[in-house]
Amino acid sequence: MFQKVLVANRGEIAVRVLRTLKEMGIASVAIYSEADQESLHVQLADEAICVGSGPAQDSYLNRENILSAAILTGSEAIYPGFGFLAEDAQFAEMCAACQIVFIGPSAENIALMGDKARARQFMQQAKVPVIPGSDGFLESLAQAEKVAATIGYPILLKAAAGGGGRGIRRLENADDLRTHFAATQQEAQTAFGDGRMYLEKIIAPAKHIELQVIRDQQGHTVVFPERDCSAQRHHQKLLEESPCVLISADQRAHLMALVKQAAEALHYVNTGTIEFLMDQKQQFYFMEMNTRIQVEHPITEMVAQVDLIKAQLTVAMGQPLPWEQAAIQIHGHAIECRINAEDPTQDFLPVAGKIDYLYWPVGGVGVRIDSGIYAGSVVPPFYDAMLAKLITFAPDRNATIAKMQRLLQETIIRGVPTNCEFEAALLEDPTFLKGELTTMSVNQTVLPDWLATKEAD
Amino acid sequence: MFQKVLVANRGEIAVRVLRTLKEMGIASVAIYSEADQESLHVQLADEAICVGSGPAQDSYLNRENILSAAILTGSEAIYPGFGFLAEDAQFAEMCAACQIVFIGPSAENIALMGDKARARQFMQQAKVPVIPGSDGFLESLAQAEKVAATIGYPILLKAAAGGGGRGIRRLENADDLRTHFAATQQEAQTAFGDGRMYLEKIIAPAKHIELQVIRDQQGHTVVFPERDCSAQRHHQKLLEESPCVLISADQRAHLMALVKQAAEALHYVNTGTIEFLMDQKQQFYFMEMNTRIQVEHPITEMVAQVDLIKAQLTVAMGQPLPWEQAAIQIHGHAIECRINAEDPTQDFLPVAGKIDYLYWPVGGVGVRIDSGIYAGSVVPPFYDAMLAKLITFAPDRNATIAKMQRLLQETIIRGVPTNCEFEAALLEDPTFLKGELTTMSVNQTVLPDWLATKEAD
Repeated sequence: MFQKVLVANRGEIAVRVLRTLKEMGIASVAIYSEADQESLHVQLADEAICVGSGPAQDSYLNRENILSAAILTGSEAIYPGFGFLAEDAQFAEMCAACQIVFIGPSAENIALMGDKARARQFMQQAKVPVIPGSDGFLESLAQAEKVAATIGYPILLKAAAGGGGRGIRRLENADDLRTHFAATQQEAQTAFGDGRMYLEKIIAPAKHIELQVIRDQQGHTVVFPERDCSAQRHHQKLLEESPCVLISADQRAHLMALVKQAAEALHYVNTGTIEFLMDQKQQFYFMEMNTRIQVEHPITEMVAQVDLIKAQLTVAMGQPLPWEQAAIQIHGHAIECRINAEDPTQDFLPVAGKIDYLYWPVGGVGVRIDSGIYAGSVVPPFYDAMLAKLITFAPDRNATIAKMQRLLQETIIRGVPTNCEFEAALLEDPTFLKGELTTMSVNQTVLPDWLATKEAD
Repeated sequence: MFQKVLVANRGEIAVRVLRTLKEMGIASVAIYSEADQESLHVQLADEAICVGSGPAQDSYLNRENILSAAILTGSEAIYPGFGFLAEDAQFAEMCAACQIVFIGPSAENIALMGDKARARQFMQQAKVPVIPGSDGFLESLAQAEKVAATIGYPILLKAAAGGGGRGIRRLENADDLRTHFAATQQEAQTAFGDGRMYLEKIIAPAKHIELQVIRDQQGHTVVFPERDCSAQRHHQKLLEESPCVLISADQRAHLMALVKQAAEALHYVNTGTIEFLMDQKQQFYFMEMNTRIQVEHPITEMVAQVDLIKAQLTVAMGQPLPWEQAAIQIHGHAIECRINAEDPTQDFLPVAGKIDYLYWPVGGVGVRIDSGIYAGSVVPPFYDAMLAKLITFAPDRNATIAKMQRLLQETIIRGVPTNCEFEAALLEDPTFLKGELTTMSVNQTVLPDWLATKEAD
């Protein structure tokens, strides 16, 4: 058993973990920036230490200060959450050097999956289908031209050190490739200190389908049913659901086997998520692996009826997973809406401010609201704009959607603008209702349609 | 499908039903008293009608006004909830006469189970074990003395029209009986207009164990696993849990079969709860049947993974139950704490007032908070003092308790005193932790111990 754990994060995910620590009887330490002195996570922790000023670079990304806080408080382990240092292999190594458990996979696994080209190669070797493209890094423009001609345009030219939408250029034809190859390489070198590049065919239109896996130190692997995260705006997920209505039980079993295969090949420990693109022919292609808990883990918790945060802590303590793969069944349907402090009519501009009034429609069956705010709390300008996650679950998808519509109607947040109204519009979109959203649907149809309605009002 | 339903209640249960109606696509009508103009249930309903002034007698118990509101709004059905008119056979009859569906059992069943002596006789005939006592009503003191001598003292002398702690006298011996028989009969005549009496052996110490049943118009009966409601103060339940840790699977199956038998003998429709006393030898005795939804239904919803309010509406519409008995399994453990606006240090005096600030610790796995209040809402002096129900559930009882302790610690309610601190003390009580509370434990040990601690502080 851990005696004390430091939570190296803020907001909703920090609150989620601190509460689980409390329930497990493990003492907790919060870290916070000067901008977060009054934040909920600081109030819920047994101890709290300020690790720097507002900008994340000075505080939540300040590896030395965070490790000092852990050592000073006698913390045996650090929980990284998502964002900030959650996928920072160097931080994981530093933790190990200080004999502090990093609650996540090994630094090697983080580094391997963080290098998108190496990750691609690894998955290929593990027999996980990848997007057609170059084998390894591109040596020259000539090689790039040859590969591109084989797989066909349009293609994506990607920096090995990029990810999450950064270091990517879309190229329509051979001319485009010739024009941009050298410049893109130079940009990657400047931005990431790493000019290595690879290319991939563009799979579009496609759905974003991902599967979460968790593996213990004894080598037991448990894979969870897929999440459909196709509702995105510029790679920012807006709404996630599980399961995906278009995926059959056979396809699910196939995907789960692939993910198990990959996790075993990696000798993976703790939780991670493998993201796939699913094309119109329902072919799956490995996109990337996130070596951490994900924002949308609650929908998996609801359909699989598990506590993933508790499982992460359990596994990190060297104990076996509390459930077998066979015990993981799909119970109904779950949806999550991310509620952000942003102005959807101003291109979703994030807005800082104070929560003047707050009403969450808690209560009843199938409702969960994960949030790091309270009436009177401040939303600082330095971090991501997510205020809360509304989660609903019910025996069927229609009931889950109806419940979410009700939640969005009843929620009251005053002091900052939110995307609640846009989320409600998304839930009414005919393509969403059919379960057929692709990663481009929000930008191409849902958002323009909604903006037009707003203008007409 | 109902098109429109009137909810003849207020507070948390009204909110719960209004939300379910919204999700089912059924239009809703709230009724309210002048004291409840700003209440949450009024704000959530599609329509709201004032039915009288603050005192319940003038509004929530005003049968004519409520029926007028239903007719005026074109409501096809009335949902009664608990308290107020929920067990009023006359109101159920009036609804039928107005061709409005009363969402509950028949007026005959309500009347039969409301008459505690007739209910006892009925259960005896249905082979449900009842507390040893008189067969039917007592004709004379001589007969009472004879029965009492057979079953042994102490006994309870009960008015047929009493219930819920009213019209009951404890008698220690034959002298006591001779002294009080005539006076008790006279009191019952005065209080209830019905002087009929019966007597029962006192089963003590005992646990309060109850089972909820629901039956559809097609005759399908589903019985749910038991709830342990032994944590009571003067017949007021404080905390309920499901299942009861002392009851074996065999005993559970036996109890469930008894309840099914009773529901079938009654030709019961909709939901009800049969309450038993369990003595130290784990013998069960029928106490009474409540012909309505109960406050503590959420713990059954959580362990059985069902939506009982939705099921009530479904059954009332003439549709079959959505699940078979075989599908009802126990998933983990659930606890409910009732949070009341009352001052536990002043003999739990109910306190009216305004909620100045409110923080509910929503979020994470296994947390549900059913409440009818919001920051800024008013707690009127006229009704019961319940503000909310905190519900936790987890794979095992200890985790469920730890979660509830955390919820009680984190909850912030300013403006009225609450019993949160006392509920937390109850959760730490050694007898509670062993699952061995009896209906007398709170009054005899938990409360005195807590008050002594408070005094020492």
